[in-house]
Amino acid sequence: MPRFLMKLMYDGTAFHGWQFQPGQRTVQNELEKALRHFGANPALVIASGRTDAGVHALEQYAHFDYAGSMNEEQLVLAFRSLLDEDVRVLRVWRVADDFHARFLACERCYKYLLAKGKNPFNRLYMGFLAHYRLDVDTMQELAPLLIGCHDFSSFSKDNPAVPNHVCTLKELTIQDRSDYLEFWFRADRFLHHMVRRIVGTLVNFSHLELPAEELQRILEDRNARQTLVITAPPQGLYLCGVKYPDPALDDYCP
Amino acid sequence: MPRFLMKLMYDGTAFHGWQFQPGQRTVQNELEKALRHFGANPALVIASGRTDAGVHALEQYAHFDYAGSMNEEQLVLAFRSLLDEDVRVLRVWRVADDFHARFLACERCYKYLLAKGKNPFNRLYMGFLAHYRLDVDTMQELAPLLIGCHDFSSFSKDNPAVPNHVCTLKELTIQDRSDYLEFWFRADRFLHHMVRRIVGTLVNFSHLELPAEELQRILEDRNARQTLVITAPPQGLYLCGVKYPDPALDDYCP
Repeated sequence: MPRFLMKLMYDGTAFHGWQFQPGQRTVQNELEKALRHFGANPALVIASGRTDAGVHALEQYAHFDYAGSMNEEQLVLAFRSLLDEDVRVLRVWRVADDFHARFLACERCYKYLLAKGKNPFNRLYMGFLAHYRLDVDTMQELAPLLIGCHDFSSFSKDNPAVPNHVCTLKELTIQDRSDYLEFWFRADRFLHHMVRRIVGTLVNFSHLELPAEELQRILEDRNARQTLVITAPPQGLYLCGVKYPDPALDDYCP
Repeated sequence: MPRFLMKLMYDGTAFHGWQFQPGQRTVQNELEKALRHFGANPALVIASGRTDAGVHALEQYAHFDYAGSMNEEQLVLAFRSLLDEDVRVLRVWRVADDFHARFLACERCYKYLLAKGKNPFNRLYMGFLAHYRLDVDTMQELAPLLIGCHDFSSFSKDNPAVPNHVCTLKELTIQDRSDYLEFWFRADRFLHHMVRRIVGTLVNFSHLELPAEELQRILEDRNARQTLVITAPPQGLYLCGVKYPDPALDDYCP
Protein backbone atom coordinates (compact mmCIF):
# COMPACT_ATOMS: atom_id res chain seq x y z
CA MET A 1 0.00 0.00 0.00
CA PRO A 2 1.33 3.52 -0.76
CA ARG A 3 3.03 5.08 2.25
CA PHE A 4 3.00 8.77 3.21
CA LEU A 5 4.93 10.88 5.71
CA MET A 6 3.29 13.86 7.39
CA LYS A 7 4.80 16.79 9.24
CA LEU A 8 2.52 18.22 11.92
CA MET A 9 2.46 20.53 14.94
CA TYR A 10 0.33 20.34 18.05
CA ASP A 11 -0.39 22.12 21.30
CA GLY A 12 -0.10 19.25 23.78
CA THR A 13 -2.27 20.90 26.46
CA ALA A 14 -5.53 19.08 25.76
CA PHE A 15 -4.00 15.76 24.63
CA HIS A 16 -3.14 12.73 26.75
CA GLY A 17 0.11 12.57 24.82
CA TRP A 18 0.80 11.10 21.39
CA GLN A 19 0.10 7.43 21.91
CA PHE A 20 -3.23 5.72 21.30
CA GLN A 21 -5.20 5.06 24.47
CA PRO A 22 -8.77 3.80 24.30
CA GLY A 23 -11.27 6.44 25.34
CA GLN A 24 -8.64 9.20 25.67
CA ARG A 25 -7.97 12.14 23.39
CA THR A 26 -4.47 11.51 22.05
CA VAL A 27 -2.81 12.89 18.90
CA GLN A 28 -2.53 9.40 17.40
CA ASN A 29 -6.24 8.72 18.10
CA GLU A 30 -7.29 11.93 16.35
CA LEU A 31 -5.11 11.30 13.29
CA GLU A 32 -6.20 7.67 12.97
CA LYS A 33 -9.85 8.69 13.30
CA ALA A 34 -9.34 11.10 10.38
CA LEU A 35 -7.51 8.45 8.34
CA ARG A 36 -10.35 6.00 8.95
CA HIS A 37 -12.71 8.68 7.69
CA PHE A 38 -10.67 8.77 4.45
CA GLY A 39 -11.33 5.04 4.04
CA ALA A 40 -7.95 3.71 5.19
CA ASN A 41 -8.12 0.28 6.84
CA PRO A 42 -6.15 -0.47 8.88
CA ALA A 43 -5.66 3.21 9.87
CA LEU A 44 -2.32 3.33 11.65
CA VAL A 45 -0.16 6.42 12.18
CA ILE A 46 3.41 5.88 13.43
CA ALA A 47 5.33 8.87 14.83
CA SER A 48 9.07 9.53 14.98
CA GLY A 49 8.63 9.15 18.73
CA ARG A 50 5.95 9.52 21.37
CA THR A 51 5.37 12.70 23.32
CA ASP A 52 3.93 12.68 26.85
CA ALA A 53 0.79 14.44 28.05
CA GLY A 54 1.24 18.22 28.03
CA VAL A 55 4.32 18.07 25.74
CA HIS A 56 4.11 20.14 22.54
CA ALA A 57 5.41 19.61 18.99
CA LEU A 58 6.44 22.33 16.57
CA GLU A 59 7.57 19.65 14.12
CA GLN A 60 6.53 16.07 14.61
CA TYR A 61 6.72 13.50 11.79
CA ALA A 62 4.58 10.39 11.30
CA HIS A 63 3.95 7.89 8.52
CA PHE A 64 0.77 6.13 7.42
CA ASP A 65 -0.46 3.91 4.59
CA TYR A 66 -3.24 5.11 2.33
CA ALA A 67 -4.47 3.73 -1.00
CA GLY A 68 -7.25 6.24 -1.76
CA SER A 69 -7.45 8.82 -4.53
CA MET A 70 -6.20 11.92 -2.69
CA ASN A 71 -2.75 13.28 -3.49
CA GLU A 72 -0.38 14.88 -0.96
CA GLU A 73 -1.90 18.38 -1.07
CA GLN A 74 -5.42 17.01 -0.87
CA LEU A 75 -4.47 14.90 2.14
CA VAL A 76 -3.15 18.02 3.92
CA LEU A 77 -6.43 19.85 3.33
CA ALA A 78 -8.52 16.80 4.25
CA PHE A 79 -6.68 16.38 7.58
CA ARG A 80 -7.04 20.09 8.32
CA SER A 81 -10.76 20.06 7.68
CA LEU A 82 -11.31 17.17 10.09
CA LEU A 83 -8.87 17.92 12.91
CA ASP A 84 -9.41 20.34 15.79
CA GLU A 85 -7.39 23.53 15.84
CA ASP A 86 -4.82 22.32 18.41
CA VAL A 87 -3.27 19.93 15.89
CA ARG A 88 -2.30 20.97 12.37
CA VAL A 89 -0.87 18.94 9.50
CA LEU A 90 1.79 21.07 7.79
CA ARG A 91 2.83 18.88 4.89
CA VAL A 92 2.49 15.39 3.43
CA TRP A 93 5.06 13.54 1.28
CA ARG A 94 4.73 10.27 -0.66
CA VAL A 95 7.60 8.07 0.58
CA ALA A 96 8.96 4.57 -0.13
CA ASP A 97 6.67 1.74 0.96
CA ASP A 98 9.22 0.64 3.57
CA PHE A 99 9.84 4.12 5.00
CA HIS A 100 9.56 4.19 8.79
CA ALA A 101 9.12 7.47 10.71
CA ARG A 102 10.69 6.10 13.88
CA PHE A 103 13.40 3.69 12.72
CA LEU A 104 14.78 5.92 9.97
CA ALA A 105 14.90 9.11 12.03
CA CYS A 106 18.60 9.85 12.54
CA GLU A 107 18.36 13.02 14.61
CA ARG A 108 15.80 14.77 16.81
CA CYS A 109 15.83 18.15 18.42
CA TYR A 110 13.91 19.49 21.36
CA LYS A 111 13.72 22.79 23.12
CA TYR A 112 12.74 23.28 26.74
CA LEU A 113 11.42 26.62 28.00
CA LEU A 114 11.84 27.18 31.73
CA ALA A 115 9.97 30.19 33.15
CA LYS A 116 11.55 32.38 35.81
CA GLY A 117 8.07 33.09 37.18
CA LYS A 118 4.72 31.46 36.52
CA ASN A 119 1.84 33.47 35.10
CA PRO A 120 -1.50 32.87 33.34
CA PHE A 121 0.15 33.03 29.91
CA ASN A 122 3.15 30.74 30.35
CA ARG A 123 1.64 28.10 32.68
CA LEU A 124 0.75 25.77 29.77
CA TYR A 125 3.73 26.63 27.52
CA MET A 126 6.73 26.72 29.86
CA GLY A 127 7.99 24.64 32.73
CA PHE A 128 8.43 26.22 36.15
CA LEU A 129 10.30 24.93 39.19
CA ALA A 130 9.28 26.88 42.28
CA HIS A 131 11.94 27.69 44.89
CA TYR A 132 14.91 26.77 42.68
CA ARG A 133 17.60 29.36 42.14
CA LEU A 134 18.54 29.52 38.43
CA ASP A 135 22.19 30.21 37.68
CA VAL A 136 22.70 30.03 33.92
CA ASP A 137 26.48 30.28 34.14
CA THR A 138 26.65 27.16 36.31
CA MET A 139 24.35 25.28 33.95
CA GLN A 140 26.41 26.33 30.93
CA GLU A 141 29.57 25.09 32.65
CA LEU A 142 27.98 21.70 33.42
CA ALA A 143 26.36 21.13 30.01
CA PRO A 144 29.53 20.10 28.07
CA LEU A 145 29.94 17.12 30.42
CA LEU A 146 26.81 15.59 28.89
CA ILE A 147 27.73 16.25 25.24
CA GLY A 148 28.85 13.22 23.28
CA CYS A 149 28.11 9.50 23.29
CA HIS A 150 27.05 8.26 26.72
CA ASP A 151 24.82 5.73 28.42
CA PHE A 152 22.08 8.06 29.70
CA SER A 153 20.39 5.48 31.98
CA SER A 154 20.67 7.88 34.92
CA PHE A 155 18.52 10.41 33.03
CA SER A 156 15.89 7.97 31.77
CA LYS A 157 12.59 6.93 33.22
CA ASP A 158 13.38 3.28 33.98
CA ASN A 159 12.20 1.34 30.93
CA PRO A 160 13.21 -2.32 30.68
CA ALA A 161 11.69 -2.47 27.16
CA VAL A 162 14.57 -0.31 25.89
CA PRO A 163 17.76 -2.30 26.49
CA ASN A 164 20.07 0.23 24.84
CA HIS A 165 20.43 3.52 26.71
CA VAL A 166 23.32 4.94 24.68
CA CYS A 167 22.64 8.28 22.96
CA THR A 168 24.88 10.76 21.18
CA LEU A 169 24.02 14.21 22.49
CA LYS A 170 25.33 16.57 19.79
CA GLU A 171 24.12 19.85 21.20
CA LEU A 172 22.98 21.20 24.53
CA THR A 173 22.82 24.99 24.85
CA ILE A 174 21.17 27.22 27.42
CA GLN A 175 20.17 30.80 26.62
CA ASP A 176 18.92 33.41 29.06
CA ARG A 177 15.83 35.06 27.46
CA SER A 178 15.15 37.51 30.33
CA ASP A 179 11.76 36.02 31.35
CA TYR A 180 12.76 32.40 30.80
CA LEU A 181 15.62 30.05 29.98
CA GLU A 182 15.71 28.28 26.64
CA PHE A 183 17.43 24.88 26.50
CA TRP A 184 18.18 23.41 23.10
CA PHE A 185 18.91 19.67 22.64
CA ARG A 186 20.01 17.76 19.55
CA ALA A 187 20.77 14.02 19.57
CA ASP A 188 20.46 10.88 17.47
CA ARG A 189 17.83 9.63 19.93
CA PHE A 190 16.37 10.50 23.32
CA LEU A 191 15.28 8.23 26.17
CA HIS A 192 11.93 8.62 27.93
CA HIS A 193 11.97 11.81 30.10
CA MET A 194 15.64 12.39 29.17
CA VAL A 195 15.28 16.09 28.23
CA ARG A 196 13.09 16.86 31.25
CA ARG A 197 15.51 15.05 33.57
CA ILE A 198 18.58 16.79 32.22
CA VAL A 199 16.88 20.19 32.56
CA GLY A 200 15.69 19.40 36.10
CA THR A 201 19.11 18.13 37.11
CA LEU A 202 20.98 21.16 35.74
CA VAL A 203 18.55 23.37 37.67
CA ASN A 204 19.05 21.32 40.83
CA PHE A 205 22.85 21.49 40.46
CA SER A 206 22.71 25.26 39.96
CA HIS A 207 20.41 25.60 42.98
CA LEU A 208 22.52 23.43 45.29
CA GLU A 209 25.86 24.66 43.83
CA LEU A 210 27.02 21.10 43.30
CA PRO A 211 30.35 20.42 41.55
CA ALA A 212 30.78 19.01 38.03
CA GLU A 213 32.35 15.86 39.49
CA GLU A 214 28.98 14.97 41.03
CA LEU A 215 27.26 15.22 37.62
CA GLN A 216 30.03 13.05 36.13
CA ARG A 217 29.43 10.49 38.90
CA ILE A 218 25.66 10.42 38.22
CA LEU A 219 26.23 9.96 34.46
CA GLU A 220 28.69 7.09 35.06
CA ASP A 221 26.37 5.49 37.62
CA ARG A 222 23.92 4.41 34.85
CA ASN A 223 21.09 4.01 37.31
CA ALA A 224 17.68 5.67 37.00
CA ARG A 225 17.29 6.09 40.78
CA GLN A 226 19.25 9.26 41.49
CA THR A 227 18.16 11.56 44.28
CA LEU A 228 19.79 14.57 42.59
CA VAL A 229 17.99 13.97 39.28
CA ILE A 230 14.67 15.80 39.17
CA THR A 231 12.22 15.86 36.28
CA ALA A 232 11.16 19.24 34.87
CA PRO A 233 7.41 19.52 34.08
CA PRO A 234 6.09 18.54 30.62
CA GLN A 235 4.61 21.94 29.65
CA GLY A 236 8.02 23.38 28.75
CA LEU A 237 9.00 20.65 26.30
CA TYR A 238 8.74 21.06 22.50
CA LEU A 239 9.70 18.53 19.83
CA CYS A 240 11.23 20.89 17.26
CA GLY A 241 12.45 18.69 14.44
CA VAL A 242 13.33 15.23 13.17
CA LYS A 243 15.96 14.49 10.57
CA TYR A 244 15.76 11.71 7.97
CA PRO A 245 18.56 10.63 5.62
CA ASP A 246 16.43 11.38 2.54
CA PRO A 247 17.32 14.94 1.39
CA ALA A 248 13.90 15.27 -0.29
CA LEU A 249 12.42 15.58 3.21
CA ASP A 250 14.18 18.88 3.42
CA ASP A 251 12.00 20.71 5.92
CA TYR A 252 14.24 19.86 8.83
CA CYS A 253 15.28 23.21 10.20
CA PRO A 254 16.97 23.40 13.58
CA MET B 1 -14.99 50.43 54.77
CA PRO B 2 -11.29 50.37 53.72
CA ARG B 3 -10.88 50.26 49.96
CA PHE B 4 -8.17 48.42 48.02
CA LEU B 5 -6.99 48.46 44.42
CA MET B 6 -5.62 45.30 42.79
CA LYS B 7 -3.55 44.84 39.66
CA LEU B 8 -4.12 41.48 37.98
CA MET B 9 -3.54 39.58 34.76
CA TYR B 10 -5.64 36.88 33.13
CA ASP B 11 -5.74 34.54 30.17
CA GLY B 12 -9.25 35.23 28.84
CA THR B 13 -9.59 31.88 27.06
CA ALA B 14 -11.64 30.04 29.67
CA PHE B 15 -13.60 33.08 30.95
CA HIS B 16 -16.92 34.43 29.72
CA GLY B 17 -15.36 37.87 29.96
CA TRP B 18 -14.90 40.11 32.97
CA GLN B 19 -18.46 40.87 34.00
CA PHE B 20 -20.51 38.90 36.52
CA GLN B 21 -22.99 36.52 34.93
CA PRO B 22 -24.90 34.03 37.06
CA GLY B 23 -23.73 30.45 36.48
CA GLN B 24 -20.86 31.50 34.16
CA ARG B 25 -17.15 31.51 34.89
CA THR B 26 -16.20 35.19 34.65
CA VAL B 27 -13.19 37.01 36.13
CA GLN B 28 -15.42 39.14 38.34
CA ASN B 29 -17.26 36.04 39.63
CA GLU B 30 -13.99 34.34 40.57
CA LEU B 31 -12.59 37.40 42.37
CA GLU B 32 -15.84 38.06 44.25
CA LYS B 33 -16.04 34.40 45.27
CA ALA B 34 -12.53 34.71 46.76
CA LEU B 35 -13.41 37.99 48.47
CA ARG B 36 -16.51 36.39 50.00
CA HIS B 37 -14.25 33.61 51.25
CA PHE B 38 -12.19 36.30 53.05
CA GLY B 39 -15.36 37.40 54.85
CA ALA B 40 -16.19 40.51 52.80
CA ASN B 41 -19.90 41.27 52.56
CA PRO B 42 -20.95 42.67 50.18
CA ALA B 43 -18.13 41.30 48.00
CA LEU B 44 -17.98 43.57 44.98
CA VAL B 45 -15.01 43.98 42.61
CA ILE B 46 -15.13 46.92 40.14
CA ALA B 47 -12.72 46.90 37.19
CA SER B 48 -11.26 49.79 35.19
CA GLY B 49 -13.38 48.44 32.35
CA ARG B 50 -14.95 45.20 31.18
CA THR B 51 -13.25 42.79 28.82
CA ASP B 52 -15.20 40.48 26.52
CA ALA B 53 -15.03 36.69 26.36
CA GLY B 54 -11.66 35.53 24.98
CA VAL B 55 -9.99 38.92 25.59
CA HIS B 56 -6.84 38.86 27.74
CA ALA B 57 -5.38 41.25 30.32
CA LEU B 58 -1.70 41.75 31.05
CA GLU B 59 -2.60 44.56 33.45
CA GLN B 60 -6.15 45.02 34.61
CA TYR B 61 -7.03 47.10 37.69
CA ALA B 62 -10.02 46.70 40.01
CA HIS B 63 -11.08 48.02 43.41
CA PHE B 64 -12.89 46.35 46.28
CA ASP B 65 -13.82 47.07 49.90
CA TYR B 66 -12.48 44.85 52.65
CA ALA B 67 -12.48 45.36 56.45
CA GLY B 68 -10.72 42.16 57.53
CA SER B 69 -7.32 41.74 59.15
CA MET B 70 -5.15 40.97 56.08
CA ASN B 71 -2.75 43.63 54.81
CA GLU B 72 -1.92 44.24 51.13
CA GLU B 73 0.75 41.53 50.82
CA GLN B 74 -1.43 39.00 52.64
CA LEU B 75 -4.35 39.80 50.32
CA VAL B 76 -2.14 39.11 47.27
CA LEU B 77 -1.15 35.71 48.66
CA ALA B 78 -4.70 34.89 49.76
CA PHE B 79 -6.10 35.65 46.28
CA ARG B 80 -3.33 33.58 44.66
CA SER B 81 -4.01 30.59 46.88
CA LEU B 82 -7.73 30.59 45.99
CA LEU B 83 -7.72 31.54 42.31
CA ASP B 84 -7.09 29.21 39.38
CA GLU B 85 -3.87 29.61 37.44
CA ASP B 86 -5.38 31.53 34.52
CA VAL B 87 -5.92 34.62 36.68
CA ARG B 88 -3.22 36.09 38.89
CA VAL B 89 -3.30 39.01 41.30
CA LEU B 90 -0.02 40.92 40.89
CA ARG B 91 -0.31 43.60 43.55
CA VAL B 92 -2.74 45.18 46.01
CA TRP B 93 -2.69 48.80 47.25
CA ARG B 94 -4.69 50.44 50.04
CA VAL B 95 -6.40 53.45 48.40
CA ALA B 96 -8.72 56.26 49.49
CA ASP B 97 -12.22 55.15 50.48
CA ASP B 98 -13.69 57.01 47.48
CA PHE B 99 -11.19 55.68 44.92
CA HIS B 100 -12.91 54.27 41.84
CA ALA B 101 -11.08 51.97 39.39
CA ARG B 102 -13.29 52.95 36.46
CA PHE B 103 -14.14 56.61 36.99
CA LEU B 104 -10.62 57.68 38.00
CA ALA B 105 -8.80 55.85 35.21
CA CYS B 106 -7.46 58.58 32.92
CA GLU B 107 -5.72 56.44 30.30
CA ARG B 108 -5.89 52.85 29.04
CA CYS B 109 -3.70 50.98 26.62
CA TYR B 110 -4.36 47.90 24.59
CA LYS B 111 -2.38 45.83 22.17
CA TYR B 112 -3.83 43.70 19.42
CA LEU B 113 -1.87 40.80 17.92
CA LEU B 114 -2.95 39.80 14.42
CA ALA B 115 -1.49 36.51 13.14
CA LYS B 116 -0.40 36.16 9.52
CA GLY B 117 -1.29 32.45 9.69
CA LYS B 118 -3.23 30.44 12.24
CA ASN B 119 -1.61 27.57 14.10
CA PRO B 120 -2.19 25.49 17.25
CA PHE B 121 -0.08 27.88 19.35
CA ASN B 122 -1.48 31.28 18.35
CA ARG B 123 -5.17 30.34 17.88
CA LEU B 124 -6.11 31.45 21.43
CA TYR B 125 -3.62 34.32 21.73
CA MET B 126 -3.82 36.16 18.41
CA GLY B 127 -6.56 37.24 16.07
CA PHE B 128 -6.62 35.92 12.51
CA LEU B 129 -8.61 37.16 9.52
CA ALA B 130 -8.59 34.54 6.78
CA HIS B 131 -8.39 35.69 3.15
CA TYR B 132 -7.43 39.30 3.98
CA ARG B 133 -4.27 40.69 2.44
CA LEU B 134 -2.23 42.55 5.10
CA ASP B 135 -0.37 45.63 3.88
CA VAL B 136 1.28 47.28 6.88
CA ASP B 137 2.37 50.36 4.92
CA THR B 138 -1.23 51.14 3.99
CA MET B 139 -2.38 50.66 7.58
CA GLN B 140 0.39 52.90 8.88
CA GLU B 141 -0.63 55.62 6.41
CA LEU B 142 -4.27 55.43 7.52
CA ALA B 143 -3.64 55.30 11.28
CA PRO B 144 -2.84 59.04 11.84
CA LEU B 145 -6.34 59.91 10.59
CA LEU B 146 -7.77 58.33 13.74
CA ILE B 147 -5.33 59.93 16.20
CA GLY B 148 -6.77 62.76 18.28
CA CYS B 149 -10.13 63.66 19.75
CA HIS B 150 -13.02 62.21 17.73
CA ASP B 151 -16.52 60.83 18.08
CA PHE B 152 -15.78 57.13 17.50
CA SER B 153 -19.45 56.05 17.13
CA SER B 154 -18.64 54.42 13.78
CA PHE B 155 -16.18 52.09 15.54
CA SER B 156 -18.38 51.23 18.53
CA LYS B 157 -20.76 48.38 19.11
CA ASP B 158 -24.02 50.34 19.23
CA ASN B 159 -24.61 51.05 22.92
CA PRO B 160 -27.38 53.50 23.81
CA ALA B 161 -26.33 53.33 27.49
CA VAL B 162 -23.17 55.29 26.63
CA PRO B 163 -24.31 58.67 25.30
CA ASN B 164 -20.82 60.10 24.90
CA HIS B 165 -18.75 58.49 22.13
CA VAL B 166 -15.89 61.00 22.11
CA CYS B 167 -12.43 59.53 22.84
CA THR B 168 -8.95 60.99 22.58
CA LEU B 169 -6.80 58.44 20.79
CA LYS B 170 -3.23 59.39 21.76
CA GLU B 171 -1.36 56.57 20.08
CA LEU B 172 -2.00 54.02 17.36
CA THR B 173 1.06 52.21 16.01
CA ILE B 174 1.41 49.10 13.89
CA GLN B 175 4.56 47.00 13.91
CA ASP B 176 5.39 44.10 11.61
CA ARG B 177 6.73 41.26 13.82
CA SER B 178 7.35 38.80 10.95
CA ASP B 179 4.76 36.19 12.06
CA TYR B 180 2.17 38.70 13.19
CA LEU B 181 1.25 42.39 13.33
CA GLU B 182 1.26 44.20 16.64
CA PHE B 183 -1.15 47.14 17.04
CA TRP B 184 -0.69 49.42 20.03
CA PHE B 185 -3.49 51.73 21.24
CA ARG B 186 -3.46 54.39 23.95
CA ALA B 187 -6.49 56.60 24.74
CA ASP B 188 -8.30 58.25 27.63
CA ARG B 189 -11.16 55.79 27.11
CA PHE B 190 -12.31 53.15 24.64
CA LEU B 191 -15.80 52.27 23.43
CA HIS B 192 -17.11 48.72 23.32
CA HIS B 193 -15.36 46.78 20.48
CA MET B 194 -13.50 49.96 19.46
CA VAL B 195 -10.00 48.42 19.25
CA ARG B 196 -11.26 45.31 17.46
CA ARG B 197 -13.23 47.44 14.97
CA ILE B 198 -10.34 49.76 14.22
CA VAL B 199 -8.02 46.77 13.65
CA GLY B 200 -10.59 45.01 11.44
CA THR B 201 -11.25 48.18 9.45
CA LEU B 202 -7.58 48.93 8.85
CA VAL B 203 -7.17 45.34 7.61
CA ASN B 204 -10.21 45.68 5.37
CA PHE B 205 -8.92 48.97 3.94
CA SER B 206 -5.51 47.43 3.27
CA HIS B 207 -7.17 44.41 1.64
CA LEU B 208 -9.52 46.43 -0.58
CA GLU B 209 -6.96 49.21 -1.21
CA LEU B 210 -9.46 51.86 -0.17
CA PRO B 211 -8.42 55.53 0.03
CA ALA B 212 -7.93 57.53 3.22
CA GLU B 213 -10.88 59.75 2.28
CA GLU B 214 -13.18 56.78 2.75
CA LEU B 215 -11.89 56.22 6.30
CA GLN B 216 -12.38 59.93 7.00
CA ARG B 217 -15.96 59.65 5.75
CA ILE B 218 -16.68 56.65 8.01
CA LEU B 219 -15.25 58.46 11.05
CA GLU B 220 -17.35 61.59 10.35
CA ASP B 221 -20.46 59.48 9.73
CA ARG B 222 -20.75 58.65 13.49
CA ASN B 223 -22.93 55.65 12.80
CA ALA B 224 -22.24 52.12 14.04
CA ARG B 225 -23.66 50.49 10.91
CA GLN B 226 -20.77 50.64 8.47
CA THR B 227 -20.34 47.91 5.88
CA LEU B 228 -16.58 48.57 5.65
CA VAL B 229 -16.08 48.28 9.42
CA ILE B 230 -15.32 44.71 10.41
CA THR B 231 -14.59 43.44 13.92
CA ALA B 232 -11.34 41.55 14.52
CA PRO B 233 -11.70 38.46 16.77
CA PRO B 234 -11.33 38.79 20.59
CA GLN B 235 -8.36 36.39 20.99
CA GLY B 236 -5.84 39.00 19.78
CA LEU B 237 -6.84 41.72 22.26
CA TYR B 238 -4.86 42.46 25.45
CA LEU B 239 -5.58 45.14 28.04
CA CYS B 240 -2.01 46.25 28.80
CA GLY B 241 -2.30 49.05 31.31
CA VAL B 242 -4.48 51.63 33.06
CA LYS B 243 -3.25 54.97 34.31
CA TYR B 244 -4.51 56.73 37.44
CA PRO B 245 -3.68 60.30 38.50
CA ASP B 246 -2.19 59.08 41.81
CA PRO B 247 1.60 58.74 41.27
CA ALA B 248 1.77 56.17 44.11
CA LEU B 249 0.07 53.70 41.74
CA ASP B 250 3.26 53.75 39.75
CA ASP B 251 3.15 50.39 38.06
CA TYR B 252 1.66 51.77 34.88
CA CYS B 253 4.19 50.87 32.24
CA PRO B 254 3.32 51.32 28.59
